[in-house]
Amino acid sequence: MSVTTVITICSTCRPEGALEDAERPGAALGRAVARALAACGPEVEVQARAIACLSACSRACSVAVASPGKFSYVVGNLLAEDADAVVAFAIAHAKSADGVPPWRERPEKVRKNTLSRVPPADAAHALVTAIER
Amino acid sequence: MSVTTVITICSTCRPEGALEDAERPGAALGRAVARALAACGPEVEVQARAIACLSACSRACSVAVASPGKFSYVVGNLLAEDADAVVAFAIAHAKSADGVPPWRERPEKVRKNTLSRVPPADAAHALVTAIER
Repeated sequence: MSVTTVITICSTCRPEGALEDAERPGAALGRAVARALAACGPEVEVQARAIACLSACSRACSVAVASPGKFSYVVGNLLAEDADAVVAFAIAHAKSADGVPPWRERPEKVRKNTLSRVPPADAAHALVTAIER
Repeated sequence: MSVTTVITICSTCRPEGALEDAERPGAALGRAVARALAACGPEVEVQARAIACLSACSRACSVAVASPGKFSYVVGNLLAEDADAVVAFAIAHAKSADGVPPWRERPEKVRKNTLSRVPPADAAHALVTAIER
């Protein structure tokens, strides 16, 4: 896999109260993200994949947006209709040097439902300070 | 920075209702984690650092446990007294090949307060499936 930005969609997330055997929203979101990416030109280096559980179950459906050496983000409370917002955020993430897109480039749905962000373990960043052991 | 497991502690997290000018719990947790790591032998390849915001503000205090090429985790609702649990989880993360420690090696505090996990963007994993664009 190349080192583009990757959208990872939880395929096991089940919103509270959903029927056990109902299709998981991550399946529909995955198809919608794939369609949104297919509509982008080849210059958009964003890939998608599914995962069995992002451990953000209470905020179903959730996705991660990540790239090696950059901040990763987890966003929750998503439905298939949010695919364009997720892809727009991933494109902004891919364009940013450090994986922290400017606030104005983050769709409102993403701004309001960001569950966490994690800095890269192997890169320095102005927001990060070493703690001496 | 070497590619050990890194504990990143939010230094800006403020529990609901805490006074604006009170010391943030991440400061005390950072000191406690540093003490716990200092008590470990040099074979424990775990580092600590602070960050200005992990974007998990409603679950203060939060930490990330990450390493290049492995799953990263975000854990919330922590206090300084949880330093040993955080360090034990980080040691299990460092020992694991993929960053997913066996359930029995995760302290209960970590099990019950895991907010999210993110697979590495640049590695395959049995839990992850590509979505064709």
